[in-house]
Parts: sequence; structure tokens; C-alpha cells
Amino acid sequence: MAEGVFTRAEFETRVARMQNQMAAAGQDALLLTTPADVFYVTGFLTRFWESPARPWYILVPASGAPIAVIPAIGAELMGRSWITDMRTWDAPNPTDDGVSLLCDAICEQVPTHGALGIPMGLETHLRMPLADYVACTAKIAPRRIVDATDTVQRTREIKSAAEIAKIKASCAIADRAFDRVATFAQKGRPLDAVFRDFQIALLSEGADWVSYVAGGAGQGGYGDVISPASSRALQDGDILMLDTGAVRDGYFCDFDRNFAIGTPDDAARRAYDVAYQATDAALSALHPGMTAAELHHVMCQSILSQGAQPGGGRLGHGLGITLTEWPSLTPHDHTPLRAGMVLTLEPGVEIAPGKIMVHEENIVLTAAGAQLLSRRAPPALPEIHR
Amino acid sequence: MAEGVFTRAEFETRVARMQNQMAAAGQDALLLTTPADVFYVTGFLTRFWESPARPWYILVPASGAPIAVIPAIGAELMGRSWITDMRTWDAPNPTDDGVSLLCDAICEQVPTHGALGIPMGLETHLRMPLADYVACTAKIAPRRIVDATDTVQRTREIKSAAEIAKIKASCAIADRAFDRVATFAQKGRPLDAVFRDFQIALLSEGADWVSYVAGGAGQGGYGDVISPASSRALQDGDILMLDTGAVRDGYFCDFDRNFAIGTPDDAARRAYDVAYQATDAALSALHPGMTAAELHHVMCQSILSQGAQPGGGRLGHGLGITLTEWPSLTPHDHTPLRAGMVLTLEPGVEIAPGKIMVHEENIVLTAAGAQLLSRRAPPALPEIHR
Repeated sequence: MAEGVFTRAEFETRVARMQNQMAAAGQDALLLTTPADVFYVTGFLTRFWESPARPWYILVPASGAPIAVIPAIGAELMGRSWITDMRTWDAPNPTDDGVSLLCDAICEQVPTHGALGIPMGLETHLRMPLADYVACTAKIAPRRIVDATDTVQRTREIKSAAEIAKIKASCAIADRAFDRVATFAQKGRPLDAVFRDFQIALLSEGADWVSYVAGGAGQGGYGDVISPASSRALQDGDILMLDTGAVRDGYFCDFDRNFAIGTPDDAARRAYDVAYQATDAALSALHPGMTAAELHHVMCQSILSQGAQPGGGRLGHGLGITLTEWPSLTPHDHTPLRAGMVLTLEPGVEIAPGKIMVHEENIVLTAAGAQLLSRRAPPALPEIHR
Repeated sequence: MAEGVFTRAEFETRVARMQNQMAAAGQDALLLTTPADVFYVTGFLTRFWESPARPWYILVPASGAPIAVIPAIGAELMGRSWITDMRTWDAPNPTDDGVSLLCDAICEQVPTHGALGIPMGLETHLRMPLADYVACTAKIAPRRIVDATDTVQRTREIKSAAEIAKIKASCAIADRAFDRVATFAQKGRPLDAVFRDFQIALLSEGADWVSYVAGGAGQGGYGDVISPASSRALQDGDILMLDTGAVRDGYFCDFDRNFAIGTPDDAARRAYDVAYQATDAALSALHPGMTAAELHHVMCQSILSQGAQPGGGRLGHGLGITLTEWPSLTPHDHTPLRAGMVLTLEPGVEIAPGKIMVHEENIVLTAAGAQLLSRRAPPALPEIHR
């Protein structure tokens, strides 16, 4: 992985766009606490987030570069970023784990009767101890806390050319790893061994790390798409699905591929075709200005018009610094789709009760419509005969 | 990975221990939201947590099995656990993302003037949208919310024999992967390629997934221990450190190993020896009843008495379902160490300004003292000559 995977201008543009949103919403500063939000505005990229021991705070002021209030163990790495205002403490400290430093920074940036924005809506959480948050709100009063979910989401959901290139590179890694599946997913192999080999293939093809692998295998279809692998051996007649969020330079891909072990039955072939056509319908229909719910409707109608039933949950979502981002392709999400959004198209088809087939592709929406970032799945269900 | 990696009795015992803590603290129910806490009481293990889109709620009542209030996409997997009271909704739902279901369950389990416990202290966070939390507190009033950090931590920090066996298995996987390092970490190889090969080795040796790899390499020592790898090629005179949290059946190891590329200088050899002796001092001194701060003091004094300076942050921490757990081996943490705790010993030595050497081992504390879970590092710095 290259150090400093983006230019300084990239970060300046991101933060300026966020600050425009803040100004429009009357937010004097923004508090960010999650790995994705911190990486987005600073470039601070580390797997150390895997440790829940320490909170990390980034304050985005009304103008200028963000301020980092972080554990001293991160000073070396944050010091290589474009951030110059860095305040550190020896964490974890049970008596004051950065709260005083954070409140001081907030009080500097937010006027006494001003507002601090914090993302607090759908698909967000506050990665800091709740008791520290409560203490902080008291210390910074009468400053108000307001919901900054839109500020962050409307900014992050439009990807720059540099970000799209990163996601495309992650997709290409997964494309190449999927090409190898037939070499390790034969009849008789346990599913957990297949999952390990698939992760090895992703690393060999250039993933920095593999944050997500899921899938399923079962006679004529699989039951769910989020379980870890069992040790059950693949059998003739199984449909195998592998799904991955592999990461390169901090950006995810998220798509799956299906394989028949031996010769599939007609129901599986048919479900594959239905999902394939539903994806094609979405690819044709996609244009800036339609909503997430309208795109959901396109895929849903395609599945229903082919005489099948949708299955498996929402039919796609945003993608980028995390495995899933907003919006959600559901009937409830009326987020406008805009040029620069990266989305997954994920139509699922019910084959029989408890058996589904799910397809997934990654695309970027442009003024001219959808452009594939993943290589399009083959039009017929691939078969592995060995 | 085997499905159902623990017996039902294991979960019953865990929850009963937690309920004893709840009763002593006057908590009528406990709300758990993080992957580790949910896995601990239910056995629900999935990499799907990588998606921030959906909250997951587990309510531990005063007696009996937990109640799951979860997105419908998890029903199949949760249905294989010992949980029978499961309430689901189609998430994400922008108008009510499980909040009504959650509040109903809380109101059933907590008397009107009772208390709901939520972990809100050091090393915790609430994995649900803050706005939903605020709405929930209003809906369940006058029920009180109280801090349940101790309830969870005093329960989870004492590992069962089954848990210790899982952590030991993860450590053994890393031991075998470290044995392979000399085959892929030669002079001239870029550090990012070494990181990839190390992850491949961990998977090949049986890791279900590799949630954490970090490390460093530099002339005579490294500067920090949390950065991703650069593409710099290893050189003669480098000290290479690799650190991993590999996962098997949901349990982590967390230890590192150091290697000299070519012949190390005397300062590096000396730092290795100092850290090695500091670990030995900790292994000898460890006994139930001492505190985390006292164990920190033992290692610190060992380093100082050898004429060196500690470097690199806290000198160890708890370990189990997450890469790091409480307590912290710092002067500030007075948590009593008890039999059944699994800890990392992580003495760091400053070689020169900006250059450190960090050792790490994993142990379980028994009535008779420390037992190693990782294979003890070699007493002299291993050299890779190729």
C-alpha cells in the first residue's frame, strides 16, 4: 500500500465540500469519530481501529483543515497526513480519556451559542463512550448538538475521480480472484476451506486486507448470505455463492458470484437468469435524478415480470470506504441518485422457501448512466465439473 | 469453522454470571449492541458487522435467555443459536429502524421505575444511531439508564475453559505462521508484499479470517506499530516486526515477532534482550490478586533496571473476542488480575528517539500463575540471511 494514497488537494476539496454543507445547515463544527469518516477527511488509514480501547476524535471547523484529538499512539501515523493541528493524550486514561482536550477544541471552534454537528441518523453511530459523550455535552453547554448525518452523507456519497479509481482497483482484484474459484471449489471440498482459499486468492491478487467474505452453498440454492462457512463439503447439485468486500488503499469492492457444483437444476438456472435480467434492467434504467426507491422498483418489477419473487433483503446500496454505505435500494429510501455515486446492484430471487439466488455488481453513476466497476457476471450460471 | 462452536451450557453459564452482576448492581435488564457483546451471550458470529447499515439489539433480562431484536436478514443465522425470543424488522427502515420493537422489549423487561444497564464507560461505545438512542430513552421513561460497563467487563474478563482453548488455537495458528516468515520476508521484498504473504500464511494455517496485521520495518528499529505497510523494500540492517490478530471461531490471538534482516546491530540485539527479560519478569511475577498497574510496574522496572527506557504505549492488555480488551497495563489501571483472565504482555523498549522494539506474548492467568498461550519467542533476535 502506498503511503499517502491521495493528494492534499483531494482532502482540501472533500473538506471544503463538507464545510459548504455545514454552512448551509448552520453547523459551526463537525465531530467525526468513526474509521470511515476519519479516513475520509484526514487520510488516516490503519487496522488499529480493530482495538476498541481508544476513541479518536476529528473536529472539522467551519473553514480550514480538521483538528485531530487522538491517542498518542497514533501521532506518528497522523503526522504523515495533511493535518497539522494535532492534540494527543496517553490513552486509555480512566480519569480523562481525551474528553478535556476534545471539549477545549470544540469550545474554540463553536461559538457559545453555536451548534456542533454530529452524525446521529440512520447508518451512523458515535464511536466514543456514551458516558464521555454525556459529560462532553454538559461541558460545552450552552453550545447545541445537532444532527449532521446529511452533512456527511451528501458529501461522502459523491465520489471523486480518485475515489472511483480506488474502488475500481478493488473490484478488479475481486474479478481476478473470482476467476480462480474453479481451482479450489470442487465437489468434496469443505466450504470453510473454500472461504480460506478465496481470501488467499484476494490477497494474492493485490488486496491489502479482506474485511468481508460471506456466502453460502446448498442443494439448488442457499439459505442466507451473511453466515460464516460451515465445514460441510460441496456436493453435486450445490449452488455456491461467494461475496467479498476486499480492501485496497482503504476502499472496498462488494460483489458476489454464483457457481454450480456439477450440473445445476432448471430452477437454479432460471433464477440465475432472472437475477441477471434484473441487473440488466437496472443498468439500462439508471440515470441521475431517479431515487433509490425508483431503482428498487425497476429491479423488483423485472423479477416479478419474469414470474419470480424477490428474495434476500434490500436490492443494493452505496459503496466506498465501508462495505455498505447509504442509500438503500428499498421502497422506503427516497434519496436522489446523483452522478458520482457508487452503488451495488444486488437483485435476489427466491428459488423455493428458504432458498435464494443473489447477484451483485458494482457501478458508478455518471451523467450518461451506469458504468460497471466490476466485470459483468457471465450470462449463464458457471458450472464447476471436477 | 464449525457451526455452534460452544455448547448451550456455556452460554447459560455466561448469561447467569452476567445476571448475577446485574442483580448486584440493581440492573433489571442489559442492552448490548456491539459485535463482541452480542457474540458473547448468543453465539451469533458473522462478518456482516462490517456493514454499518443496521443496528442489532440484544436484551439480557434479569433471568432467562437473551431476547434478540434484530434485522430480518439475521434471522436465519440467529435462529441456529440458543435464542428463541427473536423479533425482527426489515432494516434499514428510515422511519423506524427497530426502535419501537426495542422499546417494547425494554418496557416488558424493566419495571416502570427500574433500571436498564448499558455499557457506557472506557473501551465501550453504543453501536446504534445516537438519535435513535435519544428517542428510545424518551419512550421508555421513567425507566432509568445506568452504566453497565462493570457488569459486562467483570463477566467477560474471566474466560471459560472453552474460551481459553479457542484463544490457544488462534495463538497456535499465529505460531505456525510466524515460523514461515523467513520464507517470504527476505531482503529486497517490499513490506506490503510481506504483509500480504503473512496474512496468506495465517489463513493457510487455519485462521478463519485475519482481522489485524500491523508491524513495521526500519534500520535498527521501527517507528510505530499501527501503520499499514509501505512499499519500501526490506534492507540489510532492518528490524522487521509483524503483529497479528488472527481469528478462529470468533476468538483472537494478539502477539508479534521481531526479525533482523541480515545481521542486527548491537543496539537492536540489546533492546531485544531487554524486552525479553521484561517479559520473563512479568511471567514470574504474575499471580491473581495483583493489579494491572502492579504488573505494568514489574515490566517497567525490569526495563529501567536494565538501563533502558520503555517505549510504545501500554505494556499489555486483555484479549479474547476482540483484539484488545480491558484491563490496560498502565500505571492508571487498578483492575485486580484474576484467575481466568487472558492477557497480552507487551513490553516496549526505546532504542533511539523514534525507534522502538516491542515484544508480545499471550497468557492466561491461573491460580498457579501465568501460562503461555503463544509459544515463547526465541531468546535471541532471529536473523534472516538470504
